[in-house]
Amino acid sequence: MFRPFPLLLVLLLLLATIVPGRAAAPAGITRIDPTFWWVGMKNPKLQLLVYGPGIGGSTASVKYPGVTLDGTQKLENPNYLVLNLTIGADAKPGKLPLEFAGAKKVKYQYELRARTTPGDKSKVQGVNSSDFIYLIMPDRFANGDPKNDIVKGTFEPRISRDSMFARHGGDLKGIENHFDYLKELGVTTLWLNPVVENNQPKASYHGYAATDWYKIDPRFGTNEDYVRFVQRAHQQGLKVVHDVVLNHMGSKNYLQLDPPAKDWVHQWEKFTRSNFRDAAFNDPYGSQADKKQFEQGWFDGHMPDLNQSNPLVANYLIQNFIWWIEYTGLDDYRIDTYAYSEPKFLQDWTKAMLTEYPQLNMFGETWVQGIAQQAYFTVNNYQGPQVGFQANLPGVTDFQLQYAIQEALTKDAGWTEGINRLYYTMQADYLYQNPLKNVVFLDNHDISRFYSVVNEDLNKYRMALAWLLTTRGTPQLYYGAEILMKGYASPDGLVRSDFPGGWPTDKVNKFTRAGRTEPENATFNYISKLANYRKAHPVLHTGKYMHFIPDNGVYTYFRYDDAGNTVMVIMNGSKEARTVDTSRFAERMQGFTSATEVATGAAVSDLKSMQLPAYTAWVLELKR
Amino acid sequence: MFRPFPLLLVLLLLLATIVPGRAAAPAGITRIDPTFWWVGMKNPKLQLLVYGPGIGGSTASVKYPGVTLDGTQKLENPNYLVLNLTIGADAKPGKLPLEFAGAKKVKYQYELRARTTPGDKSKVQGVNSSDFIYLIMPDRFANGDPKNDIVKGTFEPRISRDSMFARHGGDLKGIENHFDYLKELGVTTLWLNPVVENNQPKASYHGYAATDWYKIDPRFGTNEDYVRFVQRAHQQGLKVVHDVVLNHMGSKNYLQLDPPAKDWVHQWEKFTRSNFRDAAFNDPYGSQADKKQFEQGWFDGHMPDLNQSNPLVANYLIQNFIWWIEYTGLDDYRIDTYAYSEPKFLQDWTKAMLTEYPQLNMFGETWVQGIAQQAYFTVNNYQGPQVGFQANLPGVTDFQLQYAIQEALTKDAGWTEGINRLYYTMQADYLYQNPLKNVVFLDNHDISRFYSVVNEDLNKYRMALAWLLTTRGTPQLYYGAEILMKGYASPDGLVRSDFPGGWPTDKVNKFTRAGRTEPENATFNYISKLANYRKAHPVLHTGKYMHFIPDNGVYTYFRYDDAGNTVMVIMNGSKEARTVDTSRFAERMQGFTSATEVATGAAVSDLKSMQLPAYTAWVLELKR
Repeated sequence: MFRPFPLLLVLLLLLATIVPGRAAAPAGITRIDPTFWWVGMKNPKLQLLVYGPGIGGSTASVKYPGVTLDGTQKLENPNYLVLNLTIGADAKPGKLPLEFAGAKKVKYQYELRARTTPGDKSKVQGVNSSDFIYLIMPDRFANGDPKNDIVKGTFEPRISRDSMFARHGGDLKGIENHFDYLKELGVTTLWLNPVVENNQPKASYHGYAATDWYKIDPRFGTNEDYVRFVQRAHQQGLKVVHDVVLNHMGSKNYLQLDPPAKDWVHQWEKFTRSNFRDAAFNDPYGSQADKKQFEQGWFDGHMPDLNQSNPLVANYLIQNFIWWIEYTGLDDYRIDTYAYSEPKFLQDWTKAMLTEYPQLNMFGETWVQGIAQQAYFTVNNYQGPQVGFQANLPGVTDFQLQYAIQEALTKDAGWTEGINRLYYTMQADYLYQNPLKNVVFLDNHDISRFYSVVNEDLNKYRMALAWLLTTRGTPQLYYGAEILMKGYASPDGLVRSDFPGGWPTDKVNKFTRAGRTEPENATFNYISKLANYRKAHPVLHTGKYMHFIPDNGVYTYFRYDDAGNTVMVIMNGSKEARTVDTSRFAERMQGFTSATEVATGAAVSDLKSMQLPAYTAWVLELKR
Repeated sequence: MFRPFPLLLVLLLLLATIVPGRAAAPAGITRIDPTFWWVGMKNPKLQLLVYGPGIGGSTASVKYPGVTLDGTQKLENPNYLVLNLTIGADAKPGKLPLEFAGAKKVKYQYELRARTTPGDKSKVQGVNSSDFIYLIMPDRFANGDPKNDIVKGTFEPRISRDSMFARHGGDLKGIENHFDYLKELGVTTLWLNPVVENNQPKASYHGYAATDWYKIDPRFGTNEDYVRFVQRAHQQGLKVVHDVVLNHMGSKNYLQLDPPAKDWVHQWEKFTRSNFRDAAFNDPYGSQADKKQFEQGWFDGHMPDLNQSNPLVANYLIQNFIWWIEYTGLDDYRIDTYAYSEPKFLQDWTKAMLTEYPQLNMFGETWVQGIAQQAYFTVNNYQGPQVGFQANLPGVTDFQLQYAIQEALTKDAGWTEGINRLYYTMQADYLYQNPLKNVVFLDNHDISRFYSVVNEDLNKYRMALAWLLTTRGTPQLYYGAEILMKGYASPDGLVRSDFPGGWPTDKVNKFTRAGRTEPENATFNYISKLANYRKAHPVLHTGKYMHFIPDNGVYTYFRYDDAGNTVMVIMNGSKEARTVDTSRFAERMQGFTSATEVATGAAVSDLKSMQLPAYTAWVLELKR
């Protein structure tokens, strides 16, 4: 339904002018996206979406050295006007005077800034396999600034910590307050669930329903707070991954409340949900109906599905995410629901990011079924007309390995089952060009916490953690995994509980050693030990991988390099203790005479035969 | 162990000279492989393996117009000599006089024949998706010639029909006697388990332990019988698929009893079985130890593993299988244990066959885990250094679809489970360049009979048969499936029972309508109806395929062509009846107003809504 300029909007427009971090809009112009830009970008083109009552009827002009107005474009909705500019190489930073001649003349000083990221190695570092990512749901981690818990004028001006669907008050400051804690744990990188404004009336806490593409949610902080957050993280040696949604936005986004045109989002006669079958994306036998419903169906009733085959929408999204990088210096993007967007747009968007910032190792959420299908969405070894889409995304969230480690610890070993699935999943890495770019994990905000998955068995859990921190790729931990937080994904929300101690009123504070139980401290220490060892040992980042066919429930692999560094990981995924004759590993063990188990520091003097208790993994640094 | 010329061999050599179908060997030369050859082959090279006591010490010479002796090669065993010849384009058929000068002069008239296959369209037709393959274990189908049941001088001169591991007496003549039966069933192609000599003392009936690469097993018939068998099949409109083993041979093969050299087969200090992990073939992280055991480990104690990295062995196998085609005019090859051979050899062997006979649509046994892995072994859409091996095999036995149809009928539908697995498995066809070249099947000689798999549920079984005869690829039925033969693969052998009526003494004869029970006749008729319909409707051979995401346990697909022919298959894989609103299939159904269910002939006048009973598939020819 197309609703030009409803009353609600007028209120929002008034509100918009007083939000900090946005260039003041003179009467007649409510906002311009991008809210500002830079001179000297690799791509000289800039497309401004000008929004204001009746602005579409005006004639725009620009006079500024080095900047040309290539043309303007009217939209279906008279409150919008598109300006296509070229920012020449010789353009200087300053205020770009935009003039709109119509019923009355409107002027706007558009800001062109000097770039700050190029050459600044502390910014836009990219995340790689040397990193250890900690995933945080900002609303649920720590409340550092109680003043921003409730923001008047928002659609959800309340917090209720007893409801899994309500806001709880966590914020950027809360995370910042625990940088030391995270560093002690061995974390190098923070991935926050989306921090942009989600001014929705319900369940707005998770961040996946953007209502303003250019604004940090005020419950988390201001735009300036986020810039400072990234800066301070960098000062502390922490990188920041920004969570991106390309497929949809929130229903209260101004672009949905007063749409530039009907074809800004996918329209359906009646509400139609996506079929959630990524298989339709590249199905050689798929119907148009299934493909359309997959790509154009709405993710949810309050998440309108963006029509990225509209070049204006595509460009809006490209510019927005260039803007966030240049503005904040953030290090990397994780892209939500990657497969749900229009294929060509995905290629264009990804290419645009990598052209401007080649060091970005972006990774997409590919919550798909099957190894072949997962590889389809990242840089792979597929070619040919039947393949179609040539993925250019550097990495993916490695759900297939998550399925494998889960099966390894919940099912007995069979020919392909149980721990053998780890072997088979790794074996398929020939499908990827860069398997090291995948992000490996045990759990995240959408799936059951792994500690619950393994039935709170500490042996199994430690085994999974040992695997996480030594397998190939970039490991990712979900907040609270280190303090044995529990919960199942269904019913939704129980995996998004507050971190105990993150709120001033919390009775226990698990950010401190004293606040944690003995098993919690043991788990924290286990991760910290391995993660800090990992940090200092590049063989676990980029070392080669060699594994052996699992035998009797025992899976063994090695990370090694040409300099002779070798870490052996031996996992007993069976209910019984196993004595392992290591002679068949001779290729990787010859020349070594002893080892140290990294987590415990225990010395292993006999490498020929190893006796592993049930559900135990040893991480062994081999020594000559 | 290397045993030069044991006593046993002398007996065998004597025997060899009296076997029909082989050129008479003068004193001093026991045999020459290939036993004869042709002029005018595309590849002019011919390598003769000459076998005779002490022949390695002699000097060979050849005088024949157009033929040159390029060189000879001595082997470790003095009883062998290799002759490398070039058969020039101008060479005429005739007797090629080979002379061996040594302690005494030996002469041999080697036969060069005129080719018969080129230009003869009734020979070497290749099998394709227009065909319907019937797989027969020759020892277990029908005994047409009781005189050859027991062959004196063989290591197993007995039959015992009460033992699953003994010979039962089936033969080529027995199959030939039932060509009419097979034609009535709608079969177009016979695939026989290997028919070459398996002169082993135990379990020799299955044919996968060749003891003479150039000879039909005398229990099945003579070489001439096999030539006639192929000829008569062709006259009846039936093609013949020959079963090939490249990986191993029988321990009683003369090349094993008196090996040309130690490196003719893979040697191990102590008996080492293959690990049977095809994953090792292309594991980017695999150890040499695992790869070696996979490829070089023996399939079984009585099946020495051929060393195809020895060029003489490779060439022996290439020539042998060129020979069988040219000699018999057979139509196609099915290649056993395809992944177990040396990678380069596989490429060379396959290329050699296709170069000489481009129409061959060979298919390899790829009893592997995972769609990506199955596609790896046939012509696929993989490329790049990590992929390594570039498969050139046209098709594979489609085990992944077998797993899928089995799951479809034994597990309830879930997101990916049950009938949905059919959808997901088909969706992955983008991995293949030519998915139509795959052979689809419900069961074979190695796995449980599908009728038992579905717990003798006739509804489920019919559903599987409807799928088999309408999905993409070449369908293959295992003998007796049409008369509801039962059995589980484990313990081995129960799936290889005799076809009742194949032996003169059998009390029932299920080759006749009168001998079959009502459900057996109904099943025979169901297959016959669909197979004969399929035969007459190319849309089911090469028509396009479109499917729809399964909904509530119902999977629907269409075969269609540009001429407007459309067959709709709708499968209800759930326990309950389903009413299906067909509006979402509009892309394929618009313009059609009625349909005929092919198997029953029932007319369907309302295409808008279909009511399918539980576990039912309809094959609908749509009509305008």
